[in-house]
Amino acid sequence: MTAETIFVGTELLLGNIVNTNAAYIAQRLAAMGISCYYQSVVGDNEERLSKVLREAIDRSDLVILSGGLGPTQDDITKDVTAKVLDRPMYLDEATKNRIEEHFLRRGTDMPENNIRQALVPEGAIVLENDNGTAPGLIIEHPVLSVADSKEGTRKIILLPGPPLELEALWESKVEPYLKKNSHEVILSSMVKIVGRAESEVAEICADLINSSNKDVTVAPYSKTAEVHLRVTAKAADEKEAKKKIKPVVKDIKGRLGDSVYTTHEETTLEQAVVDLLLANNLTVTTIESCTGGMVAARLINVPGVSEIFKSGFITYSNKAKRKIVGVKKKTLEKYTAVSAQVVSEMVSGIPIFNLNRADVAVAVSGYAGPDGGTKEHPVGTVFIAVNVCGVISVKEYHFKGSRQKIRESAVAEALILMRQSILEYYSRMMSNPQE
Amino acid sequence: MTAETIFVGTELLLGNIVNTNAAYIAQRLAAMGISCYYQSVVGDNEERLSKVLREAIDRSDLVILSGGLGPTQDDITKDVTAKVLDRPMYLDEATKNRIEEHFLRRGTDMPENNIRQALVPEGAIVLENDNGTAPGLIIEHPVLSVADSKEGTRKIILLPGPPLELEALWESKVEPYLKKNSHEVILSSMVKIVGRAESEVAEICADLINSSNKDVTVAPYSKTAEVHLRVTAKAADEKEAKKKIKPVVKDIKGRLGDSVYTTHEETTLEQAVVDLLLANNLTVTTIESCTGGMVAARLINVPGVSEIFKSGFITYSNKAKRKIVGVKKKTLEKYTAVSAQVVSEMVSGIPIFNLNRADVAVAVSGYAGPDGGTKEHPVGTVFIAVNVCGVISVKEYHFKGSRQKIRESAVAEALILMRQSILEYYSRMMSNPQE
Repeated sequence: MTAETIFVGTELLLGNIVNTNAAYIAQRLAAMGISCYYQSVVGDNEERLSKVLREAIDRSDLVILSGGLGPTQDDITKDVTAKVLDRPMYLDEATKNRIEEHFLRRGTDMPENNIRQALVPEGAIVLENDNGTAPGLIIEHPVLSVADSKEGTRKIILLPGPPLELEALWESKVEPYLKKNSHEVILSSMVKIVGRAESEVAEICADLINSSNKDVTVAPYSKTAEVHLRVTAKAADEKEAKKKIKPVVKDIKGRLGDSVYTTHEETTLEQAVVDLLLANNLTVTTIESCTGGMVAARLINVPGVSEIFKSGFITYSNKAKRKIVGVKKKTLEKYTAVSAQVVSEMVSGIPIFNLNRADVAVAVSGYAGPDGGTKEHPVGTVFIAVNVCGVISVKEYHFKGSRQKIRESAVAEALILMRQSILEYYSRMMSNPQE
Repeated sequence: MTAETIFVGTELLLGNIVNTNAAYIAQRLAAMGISCYYQSVVGDNEERLSKVLREAIDRSDLVILSGGLGPTQDDITKDVTAKVLDRPMYLDEATKNRIEEHFLRRGTDMPENNIRQALVPEGAIVLENDNGTAPGLIIEHPVLSVADSKEGTRKIILLPGPPLELEALWESKVEPYLKKNSHEVILSSMVKIVGRAESEVAEICADLINSSNKDVTVAPYSKTAEVHLRVTAKAADEKEAKKKIKPVVKDIKGRLGDSVYTTHEETTLEQAVVDLLLANNLTVTTIESCTGGMVAARLINVPGVSEIFKSGFITYSNKAKRKIVGVKKKTLEKYTAVSAQVVSEMVSGIPIFNLNRADVAVAVSGYAGPDGGTKEHPVGTVFIAVNVCGVISVKEYHFKGSRQKIRESAVAEALILMRQSILEYYSRMMSNPQE
């Protein structure tokens, strides 16, 4: 089965919004093993949308359209699709009632325009939208004879544009539908790796990535300071697919060791760090200069973090570094605020108040630019220190890019150094239990 | 002149990366008044890329391709373009030297593969890339007779995929080229608005947005807690374009008053807040609970913020709220941590140490979910308080969406409340100077 996606909306052509739906659907299709060869964006224009849709139906088994299902006259995706497929529309009473209820719950009557959203092309499967008024639609359309294309049935799926609505409909309705209609099961694991360059991972796993075994594929993805390997297997049933994935994931973990922080798609780096802290019953605090709260913000992304994160500090000025976490004036004068010595003191100084008795502390200080920096430590130089129960690790980094990019890289590396320092602390304790 | 964009890369079709280049180029084209009717994404596949490129050249005056200019055999954008345009490639010595120097600066010889990046289709204008090895290319290609399309010259522009390289080339080379080849000048101002719903702005400015005056257009864009109006004018020269824009921007400011925080494209909300603090010589501190450092992180986005931002606090636990900023135990027990009373005390309590004597303080406390909240204050409820030199403003908000979305909305509203409170403080001082 081959797929393609069409996104409808002038706001995309004007660059008003970034097309995150394209990446979302692409990932979900890839995870199901469905090949997608084209993505298109067109405006709310009948002629151009018809043209793109006809072409898509001609060459792809599955065509997914998103956007243009709103209540206004500008929203033409459904009308154009009905015309192209030559299917008249009827008023779907169940959908009309659902939309009316949607407005009643908000204490208003349904505006007249919204009745358009209850019109449905004949033969379509209606997907109830719990997060908005526009329903999703699936149309199974026979293609009897089209030049240069495969005969058979095309699946045309219409989804609303707002990501919240699209994603909820995808996960609750579209994916189960596609899986039911598939003769095979596709499963994947995501092996997430830190502390290694993409080229290094690609080299170590070259045989797996380039393998001609199409039953189990391994594909690399790169993210800020991380490399992900998606391991995907096709099989007749779930049990068999799992059986195929398992040894490959084990093999990769064997090759990359502790660099692998998770094999679960939904686990983020900050989740892995918080899990490690929770598992070892360690509280944590953050002392940030150039990242200005971003390390704390990422940790607090994780629901349930309140068990181990009580407070954090942004010590942007030298005075704040001295008064809040007890960095010595002498150290600041001798080494400057961007130095291994200062970040070490930031995670080890005696706090002015008694609260900051966390088991783990992380500190970041650097030159994020665009101005500042010294000859020895130009913009992009960042020092990170981690204190795990008294054992301090410090590292120096050199990042490239904008102020924002340098700070994002520093945040990712701070999480990575936290993870590594905690793992090393416990592995040292295991090998020297008398300590 | 009509344009379309083609993005080449299997990583886009797999959803590995979000296509931010599409939005970037779309915005830049829109700002120049160039209409873009199609965006396409294809993989590194000769047949499919050829097909999409031929179609684009057939229907658009300007075709911009991005991605697939790397050194490996997978990178086929340049080869396919040369084939489609029937232009042989030659080795461009200047580019070869530049690539060799690029590697020498990094202390290595040029890998053999990279010589492919110095191949250039005959007649192309080479755009030197200061941030990578692949040069950009502009090809002016005459179209003598194509059925159903306009005759004339097509401009085909090839740009590398990494955003840093693409954006630098766009701003330094492509935009000046397009402007030089245009008989008119297009200028725009961005009127950025807070504290008003998009529908309210659209209503107040309906006549301007729907105006049939195509010389000056007004288009609305919505962002988290903000509405932007782009005012664009076409004219024979810059002076005339400015003259056309000015009265429209003034008109909008007159209708929306203080809701307009800037009319400059590059000024962000955090920049506007920092500018206001700097102009009034006010220092600032942040005391965050559910946003966990995100307000501070946005303020610290602004270069030069160190003049007025010295320190910030993340008081996630109740104990931290008590010990760090002096919230009373009684207040926490009576009203809970998510209340107007507690955020008021967060911005007014006597700090434990003497450092936190900022002129302006902002505090955020709320339920970001997915768990938590009470019947009275469900997930999404956030209280924000701002203290400007002793005058405290408190507001209650109800946000929707994911944990991340709720926190982002809270951060934007915190910046907006800071701005509004500072403006009100000074306007009150002006009307009651004896205070």
